[in-house]
Amino acid sequence: MEKYYIGIDIGGMSLKGAVVSSLGEIKYKTTIVTKVGQGNEVFVNDLKTLIRKILNENKDKEILGIGVGLPGLINSENGIMDIAPNLQVTDLHLYDELKEFNLPVKASNDANVAALGEVKFGAAKGYSDSILLTLGTGVGGGVVINGKLFEGFNSKGAELGHMIINFDGVKCPCGLTGCLEAYASATALLRMTKEKMLEHKESMMWEYCNNDINNVNGLTSFECAKKGDKVASDLVDEYVSYIGVGILSFCNIFRPQIILIGGGISNQGDYLINKLVKYCSERDYGMKMSPKVEIKCAALKNDAGVIGAASLVM
Amino acid sequence: MEKYYIGIDIGGMSLKGAVVSSLGEIKYKTTIVTKVGQGNEVFVNDLKTLIRKILNENKDKEILGIGVGLPGLINSENGIMDIAPNLQVTDLHLYDELKEFNLPVKASNDANVAALGEVKFGAAKGYSDSILLTLGTGVGGGVVINGKLFEGFNSKGAELGHMIINFDGVKCPCGLTGCLEAYASATALLRMTKEKMLEHKESMMWEYCNNDINNVNGLTSFECAKKGDKVASDLVDEYVSYIGVGILSFCNIFRPQIILIGGGISNQGDYLINKLVKYCSERDYGMKMSPKVEIKCAALKNDAGVIGAASLVM
Repeated sequence: MEKYYIGIDIGGMSLKGAVVSSLGEIKYKTTIVTKVGQGNEVFVNDLKTLIRKILNENKDKEILGIGVGLPGLINSENGIMDIAPNLQVTDLHLYDELKEFNLPVKASNDANVAALGEVKFGAAKGYSDSILLTLGTGVGGGVVINGKLFEGFNSKGAELGHMIINFDGVKCPCGLTGCLEAYASATALLRMTKEKMLEHKESMMWEYCNNDINNVNGLTSFECAKKGDKVASDLVDEYVSYIGVGILSFCNIFRPQIILIGGGISNQGDYLINKLVKYCSERDYGMKMSPKVEIKCAALKNDAGVIGAASLVM
Repeated sequence: MEKYYIGIDIGGMSLKGAVVSSLGEIKYKTTIVTKVGQGNEVFVNDLKTLIRKILNENKDKEILGIGVGLPGLINSENGIMDIAPNLQVTDLHLYDELKEFNLPVKASNDANVAALGEVKFGAAKGYSDSILLTLGTGVGGGVVINGKLFEGFNSKGAELGHMIINFDGVKCPCGLTGCLEAYASATALLRMTKEKMLEHKESMMWEYCNNDINNVNGLTSFECAKKGDKVASDLVDEYVSYIGVGILSFCNIFRPQIILIGGGISNQGDYLINKLVKYCSERDYGMKMSPKVEIKCAALKNDAGVIGAASLVM
């Protein structure tokens, strides 16, 4: 008989839930929009409502566990969430709260969960050692070592977006200076796009934005670069170099077999990957005589959260 | 009956060997000076000569294994040394070569070995997750996760000295730009000391060096800073900040319980550690709400190599 697992992906605006088979197939999917950011009680109630709904609507399937991915720090051993800033949740004992379902529960940071999903069912399938960088509002990181999620001591590590790549550089929202996140996130790309546009009134990017800088988004530079705009093209190359600097360092630190790029920026697909591969191969993937590391886009896209979460309890 | 292990520390000038007890005590010690850098055959002969000598002179002890630490890349699973530049060794099947001794053999990079030694018998004893940074000619790194040495896929990671901390910065001998090693090694300190002296003819460091810049060494800036020289003091603070940047990043990536500083620079002891703790605590050890990470000097000093190597087979 096929085995099924609940995967829950907690975001800033909604809770997504799915029933995922042991083959990684999504058999059922639902979302509840939440008033996120109202503290522990509201969060737990929303979560329980979602789980009850999933169980009720999937009585024909034997569910073997509940996996949860969330934007915050959680100790995956004991289920204590120290803090999830966007959810306004602090010091929540998540596993205790979910005991009533009588199912194994495991939770981890959303980037970790996505990395595990990619190893089990996505672009890193068949690889024992991989890293996922999610380039979105921030830069998330997930590390899989020898097939297992590496979360750092007490699940407090793998914050790859907060490796410092330029100690003299841009302030990061985390309080440090020059973090990878301050250069390689979509937010950083947006900032740099606006800066370049203000410097270069002749850039095609103005036209692309209907001459209103408020219309800039994560696509602006990439789309105009593809159309041959020099300013946009130089900017994209600069942006790629920042991601590349992160990749070179992670190669030297972890030497994974494969590095995956996820998050909104990964929609650039091969255009982005080809540039990254070129940047890193010209630099020997870290050091002379280093083995080549594959670089690919993550494959699970919007389903990475629920599939990855379900993977936690498979 | 007490158990004994051979630990061998291969350096650029000599091969050190010791017999180490299961309590980490050195029971016997010997060194052979070698004509290092003459290729695989000379290296293997020297190594075998050393092991034979140790076994002959310790017939009263039951030796249970041979551990080797060396300056180069070795796959600790299969014993294949891809490259050890200083030894001029390439593609050597070390474990096969040492089969004649009929003892378990395990080898790893020297920084890894030292990190393991510190966890078993040194300053990180009792900690499950620790990092050792050796600040010497280069910057070596050893990572212990959950009590086990982490070497990266195929033992090709944990090159912590080659994490990029300033993508716009100083060229590193490895070929990359802005590696931690280019800022935090003793070699880097020497470079920066000379630069500062040339900028500041009034600095006490000139007197300390008998007005000859060729007399600069790793102590110059530290000793003059302690005596109150402003230029030296600022330089030491700058140098400490570079080590600190590395530590903050490693905290975010690994979140170890403790970070140890080894190598020649660690002779500065508490003077260095106090400055590092101040730098990192002012920056929350990585990110707001991050747990505090202990920072200490490595304890095994010159014996780290042989004790750590022996630890590999305990």
